[in-house]
Amino acid sequence: MNEEMKLFFDEVLVLLEEKKYIQLRELFTEAKAADLAELIEEVAEEYPNNTTIIFRLLPKDLAADVFSYLSPTQKRNIVDTLHENQLRNIVEELNFDDKIDFLEEMPANVVKRILKRVTDDERKLINQFLNYPEFSAGSLMTIEYVSLKKEMTVAEALQHIRMNGIDKETIYTCYVLNETRKLEGIISLRKLILADDHLKVAEIMDVDVISTTTLDDQEEVADLFKKYDLMSLPVVDREDRLVGIITIDDIVDVIEQENTEDFEKMAALLPSEEEYMNTGIFLLARRRIVWLLVLMISATFTENIIGRFEDVLSAVVILAAAIPMLMDTAGNAGNQTSTLIIRGIALGEIELDDYLKVLWKEFRISILVGIMLASVNFVRMLLISNASLAIAITVSLTLALTVIMAKLFGGMLPILAKRMKLDPAIMAGPLITTIVDAMALVVYFNIAGIILGLY
Amino acid sequence: MNEEMKLFFDEVLVLLEEKKYIQLRELFTEAKAADLAELIEEVAEEYPNNTTIIFRLLPKDLAADVFSYLSPTQKRNIVDTLHENQLRNIVEELNFDDKIDFLEEMPANVVKRILKRVTDDERKLINQFLNYPEFSAGSLMTIEYVSLKKEMTVAEALQHIRMNGIDKETIYTCYVLNETRKLEGIISLRKLILADDHLKVAEIMDVDVISTTTLDDQEEVADLFKKYDLMSLPVVDREDRLVGIITIDDIVDVIEQENTEDFEKMAALLPSEEEYMNTGIFLLARRRIVWLLVLMISATFTENIIGRFEDVLSAVVILAAAIPMLMDTAGNAGNQTSTLIIRGIALGEIELDDYLKVLWKEFRISILVGIMLASVNFVRMLLISNASLAIAITVSLTLALTVIMAKLFGGMLPILAKRMKLDPAIMAGPLITTIVDAMALVVYFNIAGIILGLY
Repeated sequence: MNEEMKLFFDEVLVLLEEKKYIQLRELFTEAKAADLAELIEEVAEEYPNNTTIIFRLLPKDLAADVFSYLSPTQKRNIVDTLHENQLRNIVEELNFDDKIDFLEEMPANVVKRILKRVTDDERKLINQFLNYPEFSAGSLMTIEYVSLKKEMTVAEALQHIRMNGIDKETIYTCYVLNETRKLEGIISLRKLILADDHLKVAEIMDVDVISTTTLDDQEEVADLFKKYDLMSLPVVDREDRLVGIITIDDIVDVIEQENTEDFEKMAALLPSEEEYMNTGIFLLARRRIVWLLVLMISATFTENIIGRFEDVLSAVVILAAAIPMLMDTAGNAGNQTSTLIIRGIALGEIELDDYLKVLWKEFRISILVGIMLASVNFVRMLLISNASLAIAITVSLTLALTVIMAKLFGGMLPILAKRMKLDPAIMAGPLITTIVDAMALVVYFNIAGIILGLY
Repeated sequence: MNEEMKLFFDEVLVLLEEKKYIQLRELFTEAKAADLAELIEEVAEEYPNNTTIIFRLLPKDLAADVFSYLSPTQKRNIVDTLHENQLRNIVEELNFDDKIDFLEEMPANVVKRILKRVTDDERKLINQFLNYPEFSAGSLMTIEYVSLKKEMTVAEALQHIRMNGIDKETIYTCYVLNETRKLEGIISLRKLILADDHLKVAEIMDVDVISTTTLDDQEEVADLFKKYDLMSLPVVDREDRLVGIITIDDIVDVIEQENTEDFEKMAALLPSEEEYMNTGIFLLARRRIVWLLVLMISATFTENIIGRFEDVLSAVVILAAAIPMLMDTAGNAGNQTSTLIIRGIALGEIELDDYLKVLWKEFRISILVGIMLASVNFVRMLLISNASLAIAITVSLTLALTVIMAKLFGGMLPILAKRMKLDPAIMAGPLITTIVDAMALVVYFNIAGIILGLY
């Protein structure tokens, strides 16, 4: 909460305490829906019984708006306290895409309660939208758009927008459809406003339309918005008929969602859309245990390797002292590279045929970085750790070689994953570290054996 | 490149080869600016000499549009081949905010060349904008907005927009200013279009305006867009006078930039805005070496710890075998938690006073996860690694304890960093791993000493 929200929060609490509901209602009427939603979330944390009172004090049209900003958890809590009529009012006032989101988040019994109350036509439409797969373009779109005909003049089109625009998600881009609802072009309100009244829509509309289809992945949809600086995007079916539109406000959420998913995958977590604070510990534990187990069991290799070199280690026990430093540095070096590559792929800066360029680049960088780290380490071991010359050389040489290996693997594996149609984000720090660790140990003991004359 | 772009690319190459410049020009006129920019970037990689030809074939107004989509590297390359007149034409056609971005990216001599050619007034304005700090609201804004007066009727306002809207960044939100340019309210084109012609702007404008100031950080600006689903945001000075506006297309870039910065910081990289493929290896190496050195030197602690327990290790050399697995698992467990917390803070889902709740949650999760990992490991060591019971118990117990420590540190340090006004993203995997590794070793050798009866 920022300062302003804190003042608002405190004011509301005082008025609630004093049961001054008329003043509260006035205060709410002037507030922004997003702020009221934040208020309800905060109140829910500290005074859960007051959320319903606040919600019921909201004017009807504002209530739906506030509701659409709430977290799924809060939506469920409030729905449980609403009467049938109140629930119907809220649902009626919701934008179509918010309505679909809401139904997707609710348990089956609530969905049933709501669908009982709508007309047959709307139920059919809602069911169609509920059937679009999660994370698809279809699941993001709304049907509340303005459609025009290409025979209209600019003046007629503006008149049409004035008559029909009130409950549309956007009126800034209008869609030109023929009798079979085939998308023939788009035209922005800007172009209409700035054009001569007598021109025909057909003369000034944009016919080279960027569009998507219902089953396209939301990440690809977001990429289109980013590349072409779009405000909205039409969604068409196989016959090029318009089935809905996607607006930029939903895309901003998609971008953050996709980023969160990458952050989570890169940290060896199973992704989830639930907010951390609202998720139970069993669910959170389950998202973590899978990869931890896989990686732990993979580490059996490193155990075997050390076991195999037990003789070397027994002869010079102090060799063990450098193992954590070698593993961590190799892991960090690999993680740096794989993060840059994963991010570059996600942003479209690195393409699959950049494979060799990336490897060549990482090879040269890793030599620079490897030599520098090895030199500093060499001096450090001699001066600070009082290590013998042979041990210092062994460790430093291993360090340089493992950094090079780590960076090559870090550069290679994400691109390889992408080529195999896997998400590059899984080839991040944790997995790279495990792979590189095993190799680092083999290198280490072999170099030690040679330099220390143990073979 | 997608399929369509590949076809376009190949077609352009053939026409270039055959020197069919008239057909090329036609092809370009029908293409989208973002596609042409992508084409130039691709051509630059494989046939660098052809980029200038392509750019010169673009119609004048399209050229500026394409130019604004290019990477800084390509912009520099093209500017170097342009004559004074051509450069001036491009610069004149650029939107004001793209012009400022461009000047920020160019070397000083190019900036001088350009500023020589503009009017005194414009130079003053450009210099003012160039002085806003990087990543501030001021550096994102444009001056191309529509301003209205509150005495205007809706009809007059619409007429004003028609007369003045053509070169504005957006006409969908208009800004109501008084004589001293103080921001009195905003009104959307939607509201104007849907309202009665005779109403006054003052009667229907929104006076409770969300705004920002020039020096605010771009991350806070992006948060406002996300929270309130904004399309544009006014930027005001201390006297509440409007100095510019920020539009959503620039915010989408900011969101990706801020995410990239977090990814990089969390991978122990110094953040940079340059694209990977266009950055030299020395610069890339420098961004990596700093943290690698810091973390490597910090690992001296782990070396000391193992050195101190050399007796324990000499007695039971095989203890060394489990060290990599223990370090990796602890690092992964800490990394999972810190990633969730860093992300939760960035998205505003976790607040600073959630401190104790996070710790309590992580404590319970880590017990679940720790016990499960330790059990699997115990069985694994006995059955697969043929370890002795004492060693299996030592390793498994250490595993459970270090996972708990790692998750508590991973939950605590990002929030602590935020409280100390540091970026939570630095308290990620690499640093957490280094800290937890040292603690894990102390725990390990102490448990080993007790269970194996070495003290």
